[in-house]
Amino acid sequence: MKITIIGAGNVASHLAVALFRAKYDIVQVYSRTNKHAAFLAKKVDAQPVSEIEAIESNADLYIIALKDDIIVDIVRSLHLPGKIVVHTSGSSSMSALASVSERIGVFYPLQTFSKEKEMSFSEVPVFIEGCDKGTTVILNQFAHTISNHVYEADSAKRKAIHIAAVIACNFTNYLYQVSSDYLSEHGISFDVLKPLIRETAQKIMETEPVNAQTGPAARGDWRIIEDHLKILENKPELMRLYQLLSEGIASQHK
Amino acid sequence: MKITIIGAGNVASHLAVALFRAKYDIVQVYSRTNKHAAFLAKKVDAQPVSEIEAIESNADLYIIALKDDIIVDIVRSLHLPGKIVVHTSGSSSMSALASVSERIGVFYPLQTFSKEKEMSFSEVPVFIEGCDKGTTVILNQFAHTISNHVYEADSAKRKAIHIAAVIACNFTNYLYQVSSDYLSEHGISFDVLKPLIRETAQKIMETEPVNAQTGPAARGDWRIIEDHLKILENKPELMRLYQLLSEGIASQHK
Repeated sequence: MKITIIGAGNVASHLAVALFRAKYDIVQVYSRTNKHAAFLAKKVDAQPVSEIEAIESNADLYIIALKDDIIVDIVRSLHLPGKIVVHTSGSSSMSALASVSERIGVFYPLQTFSKEKEMSFSEVPVFIEGCDKGTTVILNQFAHTISNHVYEADSAKRKAIHIAAVIACNFTNYLYQVSSDYLSEHGISFDVLKPLIRETAQKIMETEPVNAQTGPAARGDWRIIEDHLKILENKPELMRLYQLLSEGIASQHK
Repeated sequence: MKITIIGAGNVASHLAVALFRAKYDIVQVYSRTNKHAAFLAKKVDAQPVSEIEAIESNADLYIIALKDDIIVDIVRSLHLPGKIVVHTSGSSSMSALASVSERIGVFYPLQTFSKEKEMSFSEVPVFIEGCDKGTTVILNQFAHTISNHVYEADSAKRKAIHIAAVIACNFTNYLYQVSSDYLSEHGISFDVLKPLIRETAQKIMETEPVNAQTGPAARGDWRIIEDHLKILENKPELMRLYQLLSEGIASQHK
């Protein structure tokens, strides 16, 4: 199976490398930024292209791994009749690709990819959707060649998963950042929190999060909560965050 | 060194077991709930007591591991002149113990303890404070016998660490719960998020959280954010949470 990768960002890079390692023939890598296309193409022995018109019809599968708003733009200029064309977005519907081909689908890998950090793709859950049974079967088989965790999910289900992922990953990382900034203002290294962060994530591998909850709000210790809110008085945004999340926890642990 | 543990909750239990394994002589375990005192005392070969008056003055060190509001209550009835008396609270000041002894301090282990889950105490950061140099030295040496990560922190610093820990641990776990509930409403297993949660926590062991941030808000992808907010319209609390955290992330990634 010959594959062309449209995009050279975090998702595109990790996916292209995983496919290359799985011995797929990566034909082209497209990015509107020449340098990015060249960088990734080199890694996977493909031809770099930075003009949409230069994307050839010599691949079997086209994977569009771009920001959602750029997908809309690129789809206008892309026509690949007969080819299987998928995007990797959690939130765009499959039908966003309708004008590109009659064999469309979605290949949504649920993971937080960073360019610098290597990752074993086999452990990444992948959610696939195909426009018809034949395409779904092909995408399912294809996904299984690089991931051990393949699920089918239509656009509505995938969107729910994306929202849950934003909460559990993006928002969680933001809390890490807020706590790191807060410590740093007090001259304390973020390192002291790392065992706690590791254990917090580790705990819910075996325990339901609601049963793993600890801390003042879960104990109903409002004296501490009020005390913390008073300390945060001069940081209105952090105070709002503290209040909202404490109230959320308290309402679950009466 | 003979030790009496006042409390039989999560912190008291993990600490008592760690001390017992380190060959300390645990004299008594106090809990106002007889059953809890008995359960923990049995584990560490100590005498269970459930009346404050039954706490004897035959130990060298008294560790009060109780909820902050109960510390205030118990301190009124506890007089242990000449003994070293510490509490394990992140938020109570050391001076809360002033009426109990003239040798007071704090032994604050920074971790999320669950009764069911075993844990290696040696990796738990411990923040100590003593009322004078001699007490501080003794507490420092003592803490080093069960933890590899001992720091000194006065009450103000410890409170800052506690706030950061609430954010990075308690609030993070709440986000896990919210995402788990949301998936469950859509008939999707929380298991699909676990590799993502693991990687999110793992990433910041090496990368600053601000550099590890991914997702729609970090990319400035407001189309997706608006789309998600619309989907969450019938869940006003989750919507507020989504909005507040997305705005927080976006303001850091312009």
